[in-house]
Amino acid sequence: MNSTQSNPKAGDGAATIDELITPALLLDEGKLERNIQRLANHVGSFGVVLRPHMKTAKSIDVARRIYPDEPGPITVSTLAEAEYFAGYGYKDITYAVGASPAAAVRGLELCCRTGANVKFLIDTLEQADALGEAGQKTGITPSAFIELDVDDHRGGLKPADPILVAVADRMKAAGVELAGVLSHAGESYALNTREALVAAAENERAATVQAAELLRARGHACPIVSIGSTPTAHFAENLDGVTEVRAGVYMFFDLVQHGVGVCAIDDLAISVLATVVGAKPDKGWILVDAGWMALSRDRGTSSQEIDQGYGIACDEQGQVYDDVIVSQASQEHGILAIRPGSTKSMPELPIGAKVRILPNHACAMAAQHDFYSVVDGKSPAILAHWTRMRGW
Amino acid sequence: MNSTQSNPKAGDGAATIDELITPALLLDEGKLERNIQRLANHVGSFGVVLRPHMKTAKSIDVARRIYPDEPGPITVSTLAEAEYFAGYGYKDITYAVGASPAAAVRGLELCCRTGANVKFLIDTLEQADALGEAGQKTGITPSAFIELDVDDHRGGLKPADPILVAVADRMKAAGVELAGVLSHAGESYALNTREALVAAAENERAATVQAAELLRARGHACPIVSIGSTPTAHFAENLDGVTEVRAGVYMFFDLVQHGVGVCAIDDLAISVLATVVGAKPDKGWILVDAGWMALSRDRGTSSQEIDQGYGIACDEQGQVYDDVIVSQASQEHGILAIRPGSTKSMPELPIGAKVRILPNHACAMAAQHDFYSVVDGKSPAILAHWTRMRGW
Repeated sequence: MNSTQSNPKAGDGAATIDELITPALLLDEGKLERNIQRLANHVGSFGVVLRPHMKTAKSIDVARRIYPDEPGPITVSTLAEAEYFAGYGYKDITYAVGASPAAAVRGLELCCRTGANVKFLIDTLEQADALGEAGQKTGITPSAFIELDVDDHRGGLKPADPILVAVADRMKAAGVELAGVLSHAGESYALNTREALVAAAENERAATVQAAELLRARGHACPIVSIGSTPTAHFAENLDGVTEVRAGVYMFFDLVQHGVGVCAIDDLAISVLATVVGAKPDKGWILVDAGWMALSRDRGTSSQEIDQGYGIACDEQGQVYDDVIVSQASQEHGILAIRPGSTKSMPELPIGAKVRILPNHACAMAAQHDFYSVVDGKSPAILAHWTRMRGW
Repeated sequence: MNSTQSNPKAGDGAATIDELITPALLLDEGKLERNIQRLANHVGSFGVVLRPHMKTAKSIDVARRIYPDEPGPITVSTLAEAEYFAGYGYKDITYAVGASPAAAVRGLELCCRTGANVKFLIDTLEQADALGEAGQKTGITPSAFIELDVDDHRGGLKPADPILVAVADRMKAAGVELAGVLSHAGESYALNTREALVAAAENERAATVQAAELLRARGHACPIVSIGSTPTAHFAENLDGVTEVRAGVYMFFDLVQHGVGVCAIDDLAISVLATVVGAKPDKGWILVDAGWMALSRDRGTSSQEIDQGYGIACDEQGQVYDDVIVSQASQEHGILAIRPGSTKSMPELPIGAKVRILPNHACAMAAQHDFYSVVDGKSPAILAHWTRMRGW
């Protein structure tokens, strides 16, 4: 358990969950390992690299579960994450947010200091120029992906956009290396059938490979063809032409991913441990000391077939209570109630009793906490406290 | 500017907002001072104590703007806040979340260590017993409010509930001091007319005073009559029988409070500074590097007359862009777009340009950050960096 060293004070040394100050973020190590292995096996079966996105876990201890021997390729959502992981020897880092001029300089300065290779994301001529200028300023040759838009989700160029080749040409002129093309099928989160997910994965693959081939036909090497989202990564049946897959939330999973159909409830690796602090029997409410500060304001399941409120409630050992959800949340209060339409009844939970709350969105819940208290299954033992990094 | 000392590294010493790493949390000192003064004047005009809720700001530097001379009475939402402020000499602290047995012990241990007087909140016989036991364990006489429910919002007893006197009797038997009665008109956030807000304030006052009088008639001293929410605190026209008012978000204000009718947009004291990192001109989108990690997932205005998305966009100096909101947010991306139904057009914002985003909910936005970069009006100068505490 070398991982406790990252912050020996986290969790105030609690040895069991009964000793934890609540609300507290729990991480089930067995489920984490299982989730990591599952996607590694699936992507590995195609002979393709998996480049995990560290934005969900933001923890060197979780990264060590993925790369027990030596640092491997990672994706990050902030330059602070890049700096954090570079400090632990990670060198092959994709910064998957469109580069601003200031970010380009800061990222390249990190490369100077640590020998890391930070790869940027761009989709405009202006960004190619800005990266080129940052390269001249720092004396480092910048490397960048051209971001593709495969499903109208957010940023990026359509594979057929004439600007695509123009950006690659401008990169060459500005002294910026073309790392490859990169896409993210973010709209796959809105799907919930196997058929639709397989189709979204194939669309992501085909569109990204198409762009890579177009660039190669125009004289650009385009070595990396990077795709990924947790749903499409799991449902991909063909990765021809793809060189790497990115995914993040697959390590922990959450109720949104469950609603999409990517995981079972039993796969969810994180939860918030909370204490009962009150009740309103006439309303069927039990109040706990976990509000949105601990659970996050994320209501990702509200647009899905089953709205899980602010999360599903389980007993202290992680066994789901039938149809008990966090129906409302204020800053430090959560209200447990029976799901609308259910005929189940509330469990008996005296003041001081503990519950675990499963997340709508693991990235958002985890971001509200500074460390994980690591558990395994139903055992109350805390195996380690793993810190998270934060900020930008 | 003694306040920079709390963390000289915060903001990496940026002297102007152009030097800040984005996304960054800005706090306008002039607006903060004005908001603090406004409620102090209003509550003071009734000769009643204002006990600010520190859950919004979580910062000793903000507390010093309220209490420049010496620490005064405060409200907190976590025992970590109580410990933090006790470390700066604050002694009169109300912990406004229902007490669990573990919280009772921890709060009283803080009293032992620091001489602070932490007042708890209870509404059950079991909590009275638990507090009594914690008192025996620590050798400190616990002090607690009975929590009242004046508008079906969350926890607390109805003023006419027969349990009310039973809880006070049990406290006496268990050796727990009755600090008084406490209510929070949380449903006032759902109102938006002067008439309704004045009525909610009067209902909160009358119900709370009624409970205090009932307890006094039954032989309990009940010295403190504590009410409060930011809307009702501002709209109260009569505080007869009330001894103190609590409020928190009034220091910063936000778009939810604007929608309720408590403040003008120009009163909003915090915002997130973000950088433009992309655009989708065909969709009318501008992408910025502030997603829900920086803005929070709070969508409090979605149930109000005007839905402000994930916040209103302003230029770098804080001037509101007409009808430009953050229409979508992912972890580190925000999408600026024109509000649905508006005929305005998007401003020209090249990559690298800065914007400020105003919060739906100040408590939630601020919680995503570790420090405030303090500014004043349109000036780019950063006057100080004030750290925030977090955790439980």
